[in-house]
Amino acid sequence: MLGVRCLLRSVRFCSSAPFPRHKPSAKLSVRDALGAQNTSGERIKVQGWIRSVRSQKEVLFLHVNDGSSLESLQIVADSSLDSRELTFGSSVEIQGQLVKSPSKRQNVELKAEKIKIIGNCDAKDSGFVHIHTPIITSNDSEGAGELFQLEPSGKLKVPEENFFNVPAFLTVSGQLHLEVMSGAFTQVFTFGPTFRAENSQSRRHLAEFYMVEAEISFVNSLQDLMQVIEELFKATAMMVLSNCPEDVELCHKFIAPGQKDRLEHMLKNNFLIISYTEAVEILKQASQNFTFTPEWGVNLQTEHEKYLVKHCGNIPVFIINYPLAIKPFYMRDNEDGPQHTVAAVDLLVPGVGELFGGGLREERYHFLEERLARSGLTEVYQWYLDLRRFGSVPHGGFGMGFERYLQCILGVDNIKDVIPFPRFPHSCLL
Amino acid sequence: MLGVRCLLRSVRFCSSAPFPRHKPSAKLSVRDALGAQNTSGERIKVQGWIRSVRSQKEVLFLHVNDGSSLESLQIVADSSLDSRELTFGSSVEIQGQLVKSPSKRQNVELKAEKIKIIGNCDAKDSGFVHIHTPIITSNDSEGAGELFQLEPSGKLKVPEENFFNVPAFLTVSGQLHLEVMSGAFTQVFTFGPTFRAENSQSRRHLAEFYMVEAEISFVNSLQDLMQVIEELFKATAMMVLSNCPEDVELCHKFIAPGQKDRLEHMLKNNFLIISYTEAVEILKQASQNFTFTPEWGVNLQTEHEKYLVKHCGNIPVFIINYPLAIKPFYMRDNEDGPQHTVAAVDLLVPGVGELFGGGLREERYHFLEERLARSGLTEVYQWYLDLRRFGSVPHGGFGMGFERYLQCILGVDNIKDVIPFPRFPHSCLL
Repeated sequence: MLGVRCLLRSVRFCSSAPFPRHKPSAKLSVRDALGAQNTSGERIKVQGWIRSVRSQKEVLFLHVNDGSSLESLQIVADSSLDSRELTFGSSVEIQGQLVKSPSKRQNVELKAEKIKIIGNCDAKDSGFVHIHTPIITSNDSEGAGELFQLEPSGKLKVPEENFFNVPAFLTVSGQLHLEVMSGAFTQVFTFGPTFRAENSQSRRHLAEFYMVEAEISFVNSLQDLMQVIEELFKATAMMVLSNCPEDVELCHKFIAPGQKDRLEHMLKNNFLIISYTEAVEILKQASQNFTFTPEWGVNLQTEHEKYLVKHCGNIPVFIINYPLAIKPFYMRDNEDGPQHTVAAVDLLVPGVGELFGGGLREERYHFLEERLARSGLTEVYQWYLDLRRFGSVPHGGFGMGFERYLQCILGVDNIKDVIPFPRFPHSCLL
Repeated sequence: MLGVRCLLRSVRFCSSAPFPRHKPSAKLSVRDALGAQNTSGERIKVQGWIRSVRSQKEVLFLHVNDGSSLESLQIVADSSLDSRELTFGSSVEIQGQLVKSPSKRQNVELKAEKIKIIGNCDAKDSGFVHIHTPIITSNDSEGAGELFQLEPSGKLKVPEENFFNVPAFLTVSGQLHLEVMSGAFTQVFTFGPTFRAENSQSRRHLAEFYMVEAEISFVNSLQDLMQVIEELFKATAMMVLSNCPEDVELCHKFIAPGQKDRLEHMLKNNFLIISYTEAVEILKQASQNFTFTPEWGVNLQTEHEKYLVKHCGNIPVFIINYPLAIKPFYMRDNEDGPQHTVAAVDLLVPGVGELFGGGLREERYHFLEERLARSGLTEVYQWYLDLRRFGSVPHGGFGMGFERYLQCILGVDNIKDVIPFPRFPHSCLL
């Protein structure tokens, strides 16, 4: 990439030409435009995505970003240049004059002469149907953790008389219910509270937390899932930065100095992908002493996750293909011989560790039947097995811990600080 | 209002004039426009609110409704008439030619020549902050019903060792938590699951259901609250009708014939308001024999609610000012002498009965302190009382049962049919 000075020099040359309007404008990155020292009306061109739109009677304000900087470039245009297609997320090319901004919020702004829409962005096209999965459930969906059981108050001591006839628990995941619905709606998601009765006092666990979970039918590869995950992570961060800039600024300034650069680093780079087997090798070759010795076939510990993220240059990293033995029964068998892994994926992020978990689901009846039988779960999960008897399709999905996501983008160290009423062992205030 | 024939006659006259473009166009209601027999290009004018917008490269499609009909009028315009201000909910006046529609979806459509925006509608202006109130809580917020208590699985028999140190329950309402947040954000709402451990097999109760709840600071009168409730009811119905016309059509055609007219009747009329005292008088004078004899100071039963709605011409009716003795401690004292009522309000709707419940909250420290003391709740609700010690403001709020709302607008008789995974006594499938 050219340095700022080189670019500005070419801009200056351009603006000093006799008929500047007919000369091609110099293309600048948003970062270079923001850093420009000369703001006497050089004619430039920027390309990027719209982060916000404010449409007034006579003036149109846009914020445009191209990933070169967390800060966006303000575009000021005559309202005649306005169009319904100028929405959050659409890509544009804007030509105009770089001038000093009259506002204190930014040094420079681009006075637009021409706005060209490169690609529309109609957010309604994502095609995921929002499902309310139940909070009370009669199954322990994935052995993902300890459960809360419930009964009408005062009847806790006589569990043989169940309110629902069967023992009932608070959900640990909406995944299995989403799988039911993905068989009708193809792409579904849920966003709701989930629960763990784990006696953990860590800075990244809550007894009640929110998860975004999605299931997608007709997905054949982890690659497709990882693409959705990476886009979700980045698009949501951009949306938060664009819609709540003051709130983010507050956190980045007073709670987590340096977080702005760390987040920018995550958003600018492609996420990395390594296999579980490679990850264990990396850990084994590490000079660092771990409390838990890394070993193939054993779950990664928090200290391992932190090391791997650091090893990857503090860019979020996907770990794929975990040992079959340490993942739940519904993960798709990779049939890869002696090691025997499943098509599971976790996303590890700086500061937090595991943020997403997901994978391809075992859609083949006989594979699933055998796995359930081996775990003695055939009877309880007969309904789930039936989903593979009638119109089964390759599918996959994932879940993201919402509070951990907030921790990650805001740089908040303790998960109890990103939820209004935190619930954890020994504490249930209000 | 003029009849359809009169209007069409004037339209016909207008279109036969030598310079139709310069003649004032006849104003038609959406209902009359839709019912027009002559569609040979009469020049007319309609006024209403935009229900949907579809903006294509060269053509703009709008659906406009003025409340005269559940069906909207399709507007077809050249994209040069498009504007960012043409959004869902904005009010418009449209002049153009009424023509036969080439589509099978509608008989007529309006070929727009002029679109005038009367009032903008920027949905982001509503100013309510979405709060996630907790699912697990240590308080029984209003004695609104029986509670589910919870403990880690397998530990239900030793409730003396509470996971949270105190007994913990599933929330029956987010109201008290919303009141905390309304002291910071002024207007707040929550939309999430709530729970009742009631052994009810009725067609309008679930053990797990969703509520929309809102709290508004600086509200002094029930009138203001009722206005928000009525607008929420109507605007949401319009939104559902506009965004999911096929789904609604399906219900109205196959599940609840006649429901389309009943809903139209609700949306067209202003909701009624009667006091609890008047309601009891109406019930006492009814010719109908009730299973529960209506009596002042006693809760209204379902049979009473149904009678009242019918008595009011099947228009939703607000019942206000209930006896203090049958409402929770936080309802604002009306100080109205021997009868002694509180500023509570319920909205009863056809087919369902109680849909909304709310009221002004007791914001006066000493009133609340005395009420809590009388109920022996002072210690448990000390934190709530403290909200009145520091910056207390007049405020109020309400809750709406989401599944009952769906029942009401779709005409679905059994609440178990409007939720994907219903939970009720003796049943917790999947």
